[in-house]
Amino acid sequence: MSSPETQTPEPTIYDGLKGVVAAKTQIAEVDGKNGKLTLRGYDISELSGTVTFEEVCYLLWHGKLPNRAEYDALLAEMSAARELPEATLATLRACAPHAEGMDILRIGASTLTIGDPESAWPINAPADVESALRRAARLQAQMAAIVAHGYRLGNGKEIVAPKPEHSLAEGFLYMLEGEVPSAARVAGLNAYLVAVAEHGFNASTFAGRVIQSTNSDMVSALTGAIGALKGWLHGGVPGPVLDMLDEIGTAENAQPWISAALDRKERIMGFGHRVYQVRDPRAALLSDAADKMADETGDHHLLDLIKVVEQTTIDELEKRKPGNKLRANVELYAALILHAVGIPSEIFTPVFAIGRTSGWTAHILEQMPKSLIIRPESVYGGPRGLTFVPMDERA
Amino acid sequence: MSSPETQTPEPTIYDGLKGVVAAKTQIAEVDGKNGKLTLRGYDISELSGTVTFEEVCYLLWHGKLPNRAEYDALLAEMSAARELPEATLATLRACAPHAEGMDILRIGASTLTIGDPESAWPINAPADVESALRRAARLQAQMAAIVAHGYRLGNGKEIVAPKPEHSLAEGFLYMLEGEVPSAARVAGLNAYLVAVAEHGFNASTFAGRVIQSTNSDMVSALTGAIGALKGWLHGGVPGPVLDMLDEIGTAENAQPWISAALDRKERIMGFGHRVYQVRDPRAALLSDAADKMADETGDHHLLDLIKVVEQTTIDELEKRKPGNKLRANVELYAALILHAVGIPSEIFTPVFAIGRTSGWTAHILEQMPKSLIIRPESVYGGPRGLTFVPMDERA
Repeated sequence: MSSPETQTPEPTIYDGLKGVVAAKTQIAEVDGKNGKLTLRGYDISELSGTVTFEEVCYLLWHGKLPNRAEYDALLAEMSAARELPEATLATLRACAPHAEGMDILRIGASTLTIGDPESAWPINAPADVESALRRAARLQAQMAAIVAHGYRLGNGKEIVAPKPEHSLAEGFLYMLEGEVPSAARVAGLNAYLVAVAEHGFNASTFAGRVIQSTNSDMVSALTGAIGALKGWLHGGVPGPVLDMLDEIGTAENAQPWISAALDRKERIMGFGHRVYQVRDPRAALLSDAADKMADETGDHHLLDLIKVVEQTTIDELEKRKPGNKLRANVELYAALILHAVGIPSEIFTPVFAIGRTSGWTAHILEQMPKSLIIRPESVYGGPRGLTFVPMDERA
Repeated sequence: MSSPETQTPEPTIYDGLKGVVAAKTQIAEVDGKNGKLTLRGYDISELSGTVTFEEVCYLLWHGKLPNRAEYDALLAEMSAARELPEATLATLRACAPHAEGMDILRIGASTLTIGDPESAWPINAPADVESALRRAARLQAQMAAIVAHGYRLGNGKEIVAPKPEHSLAEGFLYMLEGEVPSAARVAGLNAYLVAVAEHGFNASTFAGRVIQSTNSDMVSALTGAIGALKGWLHGGVPGPVLDMLDEIGTAENAQPWISAALDRKERIMGFGHRVYQVRDPRAALLSDAADKMADETGDHHLLDLIKVVEQTTIDELEKRKPGNKLRANVELYAALILHAVGIPSEIFTPVFAIGRTSGWTAHILEQMPKSLIIRPESVYGGPRGLTFVPMDERA
């Protein structure tokens, strides 16, 4: 930084830190050019439909897929953690009736240092890796419980106590609804959670890493990540894809509706991505999962419609801007699968956060041993050398 | 990012984003070479001892010092906000007995979207500047109430309701203790809050800006900043300066104690800073404030001792490393003034957070209109092309 006396040349300002490489990571590789997403070396398309969400959690945290014994230990740890601390439940009871989706989740998550001696402050010692891994598993389970309980309490319903034998996806739907869900719905939600589990250095993940970099604790970092995901530039606004499908209504109406919207220079919901120049690989996974669900339920209406909308949008865009790279992103089919599973649209983003907690905590774990604060510079561009004036002489 | 097929040269990795300029700011200029800190163009040494903390808040948020009418309106807004929402109080009652300093503050702050329709989610419209400025004022006042109430509830005491006529510093001590504090103590705390109000792009401020950059809300960003300050690499661990003074005990013991510690290659608490190559300008302000308090109370012991410790440390460092630039930082005298004011050391960092809330919210306000996500890149350094193996065949 320059003092008033010395004129140094203006440094380059990296607005939004675009193009700045902040770290080497071993967690995910997002190949935007080829539309490939790999988690710890496994192509996401090879995992999806095959693994449980808990297996992906283990993979993200430990860097390897679990064997049977490791998997069973993980399920036990997560299952026990679904029973939230009393203080967290009391907080949800007090706050959920006066708050919404992501706010309830941020409020609930922020309490999770309670009852966890390893998050106690001050954190003097470098974190023990084994205990940090267990904490990630507990937080992952607790997030699902907070979303389910928070939704019920916010809607004037009593909470549904978790059952230890449930998986995360099944347990979440059970705590949300009070009834054991169908296998098809559990499979649909599981596929969704796997698809959104991790996606590299997005803003929420980065926020979590910045907070962890001060040697803070995992709950503080997770709470910050939730806050970042709340922003509509990142976590999106729930429901607009569904609203669009609702407006279009029928396959026949797709072409005129989309053509008119593009003529008005409007954005088509669920298209375009900062990184992908081709179809988002997660769109394919979610579309497959939606196919399976539609076969189970016999309700193909929205799925058929969305496929027409996707192809029509590509065709209409090609007419207007030949060679453009706008393709379906994860949101297009995410809305569809969450709707098919029966998730209320008010908690689409909180349910996304449940899935992404696995990635967030994996990045927090990766950041943990670094002991180097993430802190860029700024350059000052305001006034200098102002003279103090007493209050009653001020304009 | 490179695909497995194309080998591109390894990009430069900016670990900790050191040296990367992320933004132009008009809020503070930190001149580490000359030991100068200016807030909105005013040298901090010209403000300190002259202004109230609330005037500095106004300056940081609005870019100008308030006239009498603007100041009165600010005090009214902040005074009303000290009455916390019922849900926040209920949360503090449930959580404070099971949590500590920065955790209580993060939990309480996270609830502050409640009762604030402007923080409601989804945030579709760009924030209205006037309403965002008022929200910053309310949050500033609420933070002080949360720290005071949280400390009492955590120690089994009932909260003390705020009095509308109090300033922030006086009101905080009143809510903390239940008695109107002496003018000298109020002045000491006011000087401390002014000194720590703002200090550019540190990790907590940056965390807040990253969260705001997604178009999230001010409470989410503030909660993230609190989480970052909790880390001991940033907010520090409370009490070590006092512990050191306690161990040294007398002025006569300073030289042998410091010399021995340096011989053992130990760090002397309260010395050295990432930016300042000379004495931290805030050390002078806090030392002046401590002088005034000592004159009032007649207790000069610690103040005299700390001055000897500072000079002795400089002399002993000079003997060992001539020309070194290790000088007193803000922590050395901060501990002294907070102790003299009578703040319990468990809440030193939360009280720091009360002061810094003004700077955090100023940066969040500056980030607000940008609508550009702060999101650096990463480079992948893990395995590729792994083949999925069913669970029972895994090692």
